[in-house]
Amino acid sequence: MAKEPKQLDELFHDTLKDIYYAEKKILSALPKMAKAAQNEDLRAAFEKHKTETEGQIDRLEQVFQLIEQKPQGKKCAAIEGILEEGQEIMKEYKGSPALDAGLLAAAQAVEHYEIARYGTLRTWAEELGLNQAMKLLQQTLDQEEATDRALTELAESVVNQEAQAEAA
Amino acid sequence: MAKEPKQLDELFHDTLKDIYYAEKKILSALPKMAKAAQNEDLRAAFEKHKTETEGQIDRLEQVFQLIEQKPQGKKCAAIEGILEEGQEIMKEYKGSPALDAGLLAAAQAVEHYEIARYGTLRTWAEELGLNQAMKLLQQTLDQEEATDRALTELAESVVNQEAQAEAA
Repeated sequence: MAKEPKQLDELFHDTLKDIYYAEKKILSALPKMAKAAQNEDLRAAFEKHKTETEGQIDRLEQVFQLIEQKPQGKKCAAIEGILEEGQEIMKEYKGSPALDAGLLAAAQAVEHYEIARYGTLRTWAEELGLNQAMKLLQQTLDQEEATDRALTELAESVVNQEAQAEAA
Repeated sequence: MAKEPKQLDELFHDTLKDIYYAEKKILSALPKMAKAAQNEDLRAAFEKHKTETEGQIDRLEQVFQLIEQKPQGKKCAAIEGILEEGQEIMKEYKGSPALDAGLLAAAQAVEHYEIARYGTLRTWAEELGLNQAMKLLQQTLDQEEATDRALTELAESVVNQEAQAEAA
């Protein structure tokens, strides 16, 4: 007999492992991004998001517990690629007034990946009747969206003007 | 003398090449996703987005022209990783009622990458005084956001219920 095809609960679990891996990668990338940032507000934003990321990892561990699974990561090619582009920026724009603009762009690509994943997981948790998990995922989603908005404001005000002023 | 550090206009150009490469990859991935989709509405959404993507590529070519550069792609590790995860879903969930939910998740990760990049490029175009480019990038950004909302609605209504009903 053929193997049973995987169901939505397994897709939920697989995707949970994907974002758990991604969050841990992000946690180790953030101090490097904070260190590279030239603008004080940007550095502070990265440091704040590091603390938030620790909370998000903690919430993911609670979700694993709710579905009676051990917290476990699964290699996520998407976040590897997104963070690789951030590293390229840090290398190629080192010493440039445009470095902070590039770091902000890299950070927003990370945020949007997380927004996509948490939005998906929240919807699936609802479909699967995992109400407590849904609430935890919604909390993180709200936080990611707020972070993205804060980064957009930072990009529009401080950093790009800085890049322009120094370039003039 | 040390080489001049790269400026915001170069960062804009580099990022334009990144998203141009990404859009072309997305264009070739969409027919595969449409073919794999089980739900008719989802298939139609992928086909519609293919047509939109052609228009987005055309707009990017106009932006290249506005900055007097030849349209050219630059390997984008992020989109490679994101699309690789979509391919894994198609393979691992083939024949599963959860396949469409997985395809939707993959498509939303793609959309969010594009939203991040176009948001960034639009902001930089404004800073650089490239008003015509800014308008073109804003048009695509609006389209991507509308596509993401449509996919969310599809995920919340048809596809997940389907996955659940068949799983029951």
